[in-house]
Amino acid sequence: MVKAKDDFINLGHGSGGKLSAELLGEVFLPAFKNTILNHLDDSAVFEHHDGKLAFTTDTYVIDPIFFKGGDIGRLAVCGTVNDLAMSGATPKYLSVAFLIESGFPIKDLERIVASMAEAAHEAGVKIVTGDTKVVEAGSADKIFINTAGVGFIDEGINISSSQAKVKDLVIVSGSIGDHGISIMSEREGLHFETDIASDCAPLGGLVKKMLAASKNIKVLRDPTRGGVATVLSEIAAKSNVGICLEEANIPIKDQVKGACELLGLDPLYVANEGKLLAIVPKSDAKAVLEAMRTTIEGRDAAIIGEVVETPKKKVFMRTPFGTARLIDLLVGEQLPRIC
Amino acid sequence: MVKAKDDFINLGHGSGGKLSAELLGEVFLPAFKNTILNHLDDSAVFEHHDGKLAFTTDTYVIDPIFFKGGDIGRLAVCGTVNDLAMSGATPKYLSVAFLIESGFPIKDLERIVASMAEAAHEAGVKIVTGDTKVVEAGSADKIFINTAGVGFIDEGINISSSQAKVKDLVIVSGSIGDHGISIMSEREGLHFETDIASDCAPLGGLVKKMLAASKNIKVLRDPTRGGVATVLSEIAAKSNVGICLEEANIPIKDQVKGACELLGLDPLYVANEGKLLAIVPKSDAKAVLEAMRTTIEGRDAAIIGEVVETPKKKVFMRTPFGTARLIDLLVGEQLPRIC
Repeated sequence: MVKAKDDFINLGHGSGGKLSAELLGEVFLPAFKNTILNHLDDSAVFEHHDGKLAFTTDTYVIDPIFFKGGDIGRLAVCGTVNDLAMSGATPKYLSVAFLIESGFPIKDLERIVASMAEAAHEAGVKIVTGDTKVVEAGSADKIFINTAGVGFIDEGINISSSQAKVKDLVIVSGSIGDHGISIMSEREGLHFETDIASDCAPLGGLVKKMLAASKNIKVLRDPTRGGVATVLSEIAAKSNVGICLEEANIPIKDQVKGACELLGLDPLYVANEGKLLAIVPKSDAKAVLEAMRTTIEGRDAAIIGEVVETPKKKVFMRTPFGTARLIDLLVGEQLPRIC
Repeated sequence: MVKAKDDFINLGHGSGGKLSAELLGEVFLPAFKNTILNHLDDSAVFEHHDGKLAFTTDTYVIDPIFFKGGDIGRLAVCGTVNDLAMSGATPKYLSVAFLIESGFPIKDLERIVASMAEAAHEAGVKIVTGDTKVVEAGSADKIFINTAGVGFIDEGINISSSQAKVKDLVIVSGSIGDHGISIMSEREGLHFETDIASDCAPLGGLVKKMLAASKNIKVLRDPTRGGVATVLSEIAAKSNVGICLEEANIPIKDQVKGACELLGLDPLYVANEGKLLAIVPKSDAKAVLEAMRTTIEGRDAAIIGEVVETPKKKVFMRTPFGTARLIDLLVGEQLPRIC
């Protein structure tokens, strides 16, 4: 049973943080449990005719639907492509399901659809099946898009959040927090302006180059809802290790840093939509990093931490001043409808 | 460009009827076109490692979320399982994405989730990946559920809406209109009562028995939104044939017939969630029908018509009085949020 204080769903249950994890652990997993679901990686992986497939889904509810660097359509393609890529799969096929409020302008739908087609082309995936539902005005907010995706996994690739080992290194593919801060700056009622655009991009090509550089990559995750802090906390918990970050090494744009200070946000919890975290053996880290830096998506990649023995299942960060602070799972929702 | 009168999305664009087809043909297909999508069958079919896979998606927005014979969760599992089965696939894996309004009772979510687990067990599928998004109160109506599904297709099976040939027979698996009338009778503001329950059920087992009786089944479709009329019209158009129905042979429960008369509805357009239409060569029809009648889902199966040369791309129905009437595509929405 979910705790009495949680008799009703609140925005935190969709945050990707602590309440999401509770809902998953206490409501969904006990009902649906099976050996494939129980891995809880970004994609489910199953076998077919001597090969392996990855399968994933996400619903996109971002507000506003058009923003600097993208729109809900581009996000819906990139987000699902990236979840497939994070399982080491080559993203292949997407389904698209539109849920539209009656009265939505068809020209906006056409703009979203064109953006999805462009993103699919960029990512090398085909949109092969779909659905459209329309509900009365007031029963949904403009448009929500679900995409599910299927990818093919090459032999010998084995990536999962439970595989981080002590002394492995943590790599981030570029500057963090761009997507979340871009959305915040566009959102009604928030009167600050930045030039920051969402980093929304498909990462299948980057992952392909990384896997060509090393077959020993242990973990790949895209730090979306809940940001870098939440994803690394999940990896630490599932791998039963500690993760130590070096604050000075984490790439953050000055404008993102400034906006976070203004808004009282910790950039470690801010969503990204075109970045990944990789955990790789120390011996392969240099080769992987160099391969990443040859790509547009990974040109600012950096080693930002390492896997440690203790404290188990915790993430902590060493500051430039020599102190260390514990990075906890977010309890509620930091930025609702960020993806 | 969609016609000027259609500058804004309306409920008809989600009906599965004429406006849905326009939106598909004028907005989605030109942008997303590829050889797999262009088939427009209930599932996309693609190859992997010398085998074939089926992939499909649907979002469920039914109102009310609990009804006689089922709930939104059971519907979300059965609907997607059935779309896979209609491609001749054995349904295997589902994704589930919840879109929930803040304030939704967790006990209702638990009830829905338990019902999904039960339906998945009944259908022999596993729920292997998922997503939960929560939006502010007023930005969605209670709960919407998307499921996508993957199924495996055995060698030698080749089913598609474009394969109906003159002299083939049309079989329906049981009485029509139960789901739609059940939902109507539950809906607020409609003050008539029936004992009719939704027919919501997984049809993978029925299809398996049918394919064991004949590998020559040409078309399988489940007549959901838009009902039997809409689905047969689509088959007639894609196969470039006519379809002639015999009204007297179409199984309809007396209560459904009565409710349709009361409400001015044509049962041919009313949604079903546990029925299928099959088009089979005359030579195999008896064997398929007998196999169907050994199952609970197909015990009332009947031959209801045949494929004819002309009028091409049209469905018409011979009445018991010897007259014939043309069955057209529904223009608007008959029953919004029926699935």
